[in-house]
Amino acid sequence: MLAQIKPSAAEKKRLHDASTALISRIEKLAEDCGLNLKVMLVGSAARGTWLAGDYDLDIFLGVGVEDDLEKALQLARRISPDHREKYAEHPYVQARIDGFEVDLVPCYLVDDAAHLRSAVDRTPFHNRYVMQRIAGLEDEVLLLKQFMKGTGVYGSELKVGGFSGYLAELLVLCYGSFAAVIEAASLWKPGLRLDLEGLGRVEQADPLVMVDPVDPERNVAAALTLNRMLQFALAARTFMTRPDLEFFFSNPPAPLSDREIEALMEERGTLPLLIEFAAPDVVEDVLYPQLRKAESSVKALLERKGFSILRSDVISYGNRAALLLEMEVWRLSPACRREGPPVWQADHITRFLAAHSQILSGPYIKDGRVVVEEKRRYAQAADLLTAELDRLSLGRHISASIRSGYKIYAGKELLAIKDDGYRIFLAEYYRARCIRPDAT
Amino acid sequence: MLAQIKPSAAEKKRLHDASTALISRIEKLAEDCGLNLKVMLVGSAARGTWLAGDYDLDIFLGVGVEDDLEKALQLARRISPDHREKYAEHPYVQARIDGFEVDLVPCYLVDDAAHLRSAVDRTPFHNRYVMQRIAGLEDEVLLLKQFMKGTGVYGSELKVGGFSGYLAELLVLCYGSFAAVIEAASLWKPGLRLDLEGLGRVEQADPLVMVDPVDPERNVAAALTLNRMLQFALAARTFMTRPDLEFFFSNPPAPLSDREIEALMEERGTLPLLIEFAAPDVVEDVLYPQLRKAESSVKALLERKGFSILRSDVISYGNRAALLLEMEVWRLSPACRREGPPVWQADHITRFLAAHSQILSGPYIKDGRVVVEEKRRYAQAADLLTAELDRLSLGRHISASIRSGYKIYAGKELLAIKDDGYRIFLAEYYRARCIRPDAT
Repeated sequence: MLAQIKPSAAEKKRLHDASTALISRIEKLAEDCGLNLKVMLVGSAARGTWLAGDYDLDIFLGVGVEDDLEKALQLARRISPDHREKYAEHPYVQARIDGFEVDLVPCYLVDDAAHLRSAVDRTPFHNRYVMQRIAGLEDEVLLLKQFMKGTGVYGSELKVGGFSGYLAELLVLCYGSFAAVIEAASLWKPGLRLDLEGLGRVEQADPLVMVDPVDPERNVAAALTLNRMLQFALAARTFMTRPDLEFFFSNPPAPLSDREIEALMEERGTLPLLIEFAAPDVVEDVLYPQLRKAESSVKALLERKGFSILRSDVISYGNRAALLLEMEVWRLSPACRREGPPVWQADHITRFLAAHSQILSGPYIKDGRVVVEEKRRYAQAADLLTAELDRLSLGRHISASIRSGYKIYAGKELLAIKDDGYRIFLAEYYRARCIRPDAT
Repeated sequence: MLAQIKPSAAEKKRLHDASTALISRIEKLAEDCGLNLKVMLVGSAARGTWLAGDYDLDIFLGVGVEDDLEKALQLARRISPDHREKYAEHPYVQARIDGFEVDLVPCYLVDDAAHLRSAVDRTPFHNRYVMQRIAGLEDEVLLLKQFMKGTGVYGSELKVGGFSGYLAELLVLCYGSFAAVIEAASLWKPGLRLDLEGLGRVEQADPLVMVDPVDPERNVAAALTLNRMLQFALAARTFMTRPDLEFFFSNPPAPLSDREIEALMEERGTLPLLIEFAAPDVVEDVLYPQLRKAESSVKALLERKGFSILRSDVISYGNRAALLLEMEVWRLSPACRREGPPVWQADHITRFLAAHSQILSGPYIKDGRVVVEEKRRYAQAADLLTAELDRLSLGRHISASIRSGYKIYAGKELLAIKDDGYRIFLAEYYRARCIRPDAT
C-alpha cells in the first residue's frame, strides 16, 4: 500500500533536481538585482513527507527589511510567465514550472518565532522543527496524510476545516506512528489538548488544541472543525474494526445524470431550492466563510417564517456559486397566526390591531396575548426567498453578487445546470456519507 | 336596558310563590319521615340577583349527621318524577318543577365555614354573606352578570373557565357598582388580589385571587382562566371606549352551511382534522378537562413529529365529542433526519446505526452527533394519528371511548356531520372573536 503513496526514487530525484535548479535560478536573479534574499524550500517537499503524485513546491523568499518584501514579490513574478498572483495574509505568486505547482512566498526572516511579523514568517520555523525530528517517520506521515485524504478530513482551508499537513506531522511526532495516531484518535472527544513540548499557553476552547511547538500561544488545529475532528475519530475507530484500503483511496462519486437526480428527488420527496449567482472573485478562504454565513442567514429566515429544512450545503463551481436548501416543508397554509402584545398593554394592542386589519379569525386571547389570524404573506418558501433575499446579511461579496443578479432553481429545475462539478457536488450531497455504515 | 334583564314584578312573584311552595312541600315530607332537615333557598334566586328569563332554583337540604345525607337524597328523588341524578363532589338531584330547573342539593349544616365537610356546605355561608350586604346593589349585579354573559366570560364550569355568579356579586361589593367594576377591570393584569375583608390567607398563584370572605384560604376565582380574565378586561376597556348594547347581548352565530364551510376552508388553506368519538357519559366538568388533556396530547404528538397546528379546539354535541385540529403543515417530505448519539459514544453509535439500516443519506456528523436520513414513517398527519392515537394519554374516559372506536374526518369530510351544535361550534371556531376589533 505504501508503494502507492510513497514517491518513487525517480520522482524524488525529479523533485530534488527541479527544486535545486529553481532555487539556484532565484538566487542568481536576486544577486543580479542586489537583493539580499534567503531562498528556502519548505513544506512536505522539504521534509520528505509529500504524497506520490503531488507536484507542489513551497519556496519561501526570506528578506530582512520591509522594503525588500515588495522587491521579492516583483522577482517572484519574473520566475515564470505562467503565474497568478494570490493573496493570503500577504501577496504571493503561484507559478507553474517544469510540471510543478510552485508557491513563491515572500516572508520576513525573524530570529525568533515570538517576533513574527506575519503568519507566513512562521513557516520556516515549522520547517526546521519538523525536519529536525521527522527522520525515520516520513512513511508514517505519508500513511496518515493519505488516510486523512481518503476519509475526507485533509486540508486546513476553510472550505474543508480539516487537518493541515503540519498538524498530521505533529500528530505522528506526538503518538509515534500512524497506527498509534489511529488508535488514539479512535477515542478522541472534543476538548482534547496535545502539547509536544509542554510549553502550551493556548487559551482557545477549540475542539482540538495542538500547541504549536514553535509558537506556544498558537493552536495548530485552530482551523479544524468539531465535525471534521470527530469524522476522523469515527473513521479511525471504523478502520481499527475493519481495516480496508478504501479508507485511503476514496473514489469521488461520478456526476449525477438527470435520471439519477430525478430518482433521488422522487425517493426523498423533499423540495431542493438552489440559489445560484456569480461567484465573487475572491479566494476560497474568503468565499467559503461568506457562503456559510449566507447559508445560515437564509436558513434562519426560512425557519423563522415556519418552513423547515432537511439539510443544506454550499458550492462553488466554475465561476458560479450556490446555496442548496433541501426543504422538508416548503409550503404553508395561507392562514397564519400573529401574536400581539399582552392584553394589559392597551396602547400596543391598539397599534397591533390597527396594523392587522384584514383578519380571517380573531382577535382572541391566547396565553395572555391578543392573537389574530390573517393571510400569510408568503406561503411558498421560494416566494419568501425571492422577496427577502437581498435584505439578508449574506457576507459582503455575496451580497454584492446577489444584488447584481441571482436565480432560484426549485425541484426539477435543478436539472438545468449541467456542470460536472455541480453534478458531483449533488452526488456527494445526496450520499452525505462520512463513513461506511456497515463498517461500525 | 335594565328592563330587559331585570325580572318583572310578575316574574318575581312567580319565583317567590314557587320556591315557597316547594320549600313547604319538602319540609312536610321531611317531617313525615322524621328527618331533621333545614331547607334553604340559596343562589341568585334567594339574593334577588337572577337574570330575567332564568328559571333556576338552588335548594339546599341541610342535615346535621352523616346518616341523614343519604336520606335527604332519597327525599330529593321523590320531589318530582322528572328528575336526573347528578354528581359534583356529592350526588344531588336536578328536577323540573313548575317550569323551574331545580337543583336539590343535600349538604351538612356546619356552624363555621372553617369546618366544612364538602364544598357544597359552603354555599349557605356564601348566601348569608351576600344577602346581608347586597341590598340596593342587585341591579348592578344584574348588569355585570349580563355583561359577562354577552362577552362570553360568564360561568365557572370548566368548559368556560369564567366568572361565577358569586364572584360577580363579590366584584360589585368590592368596587361598588357595575360601572366601577368595568373601569377597574379595564386595567386588570394577571396577579391581581382582591380581599373584601382583609383576611386573606390565599397562597395560590392564580391570575385573579378573590379571597372568599367566608373561607379566607379559598380563592373564589380559582376556576377563572388567565384568558377569560383578560377577555373580560379587554371587553371592559372596549366597552368604556364605545359602549354598546351588543356587549350585553351577543347573538350566537348561525350553524354554518356546507357552502360556508367550504368557502372558509378555501380561504384559509389549512387542513382541518376532526377526531370524533362517542362522548363518555360523564358531566361536562369531568369531560372538558379530559378533552383538553386529549387535545394537548394530540398536539404534542403532531408537533413532535414535525407537523404544525394553526389552532385547535374541543367540542361535545349530542352524544358525540371531538377534537378539532386545524393543520398549518399536515404533510412532510418522506425523507427525514434522525439524530444519533455523540461520536465518542461508541456503543451507542453501533446500536443507533444497527437500528437505522435503511438509510437514504449518511451517516454524517452534525454538531458532534452521528446523523442519518431515512424514510419517515408517517408523512401525513392523519396517518400518524391513526397509528398512534390509542397509545396517547388522553384522559381515562376518553381513552376508553377512543378504544371502542373513533373516526378521523379530514378537510371536506367535515361536511359529513350535520348536527346543528357542531355547525355552530364551527362558526364560533372560525370566527374566534372575543372582542370586536373595530371597537378598540
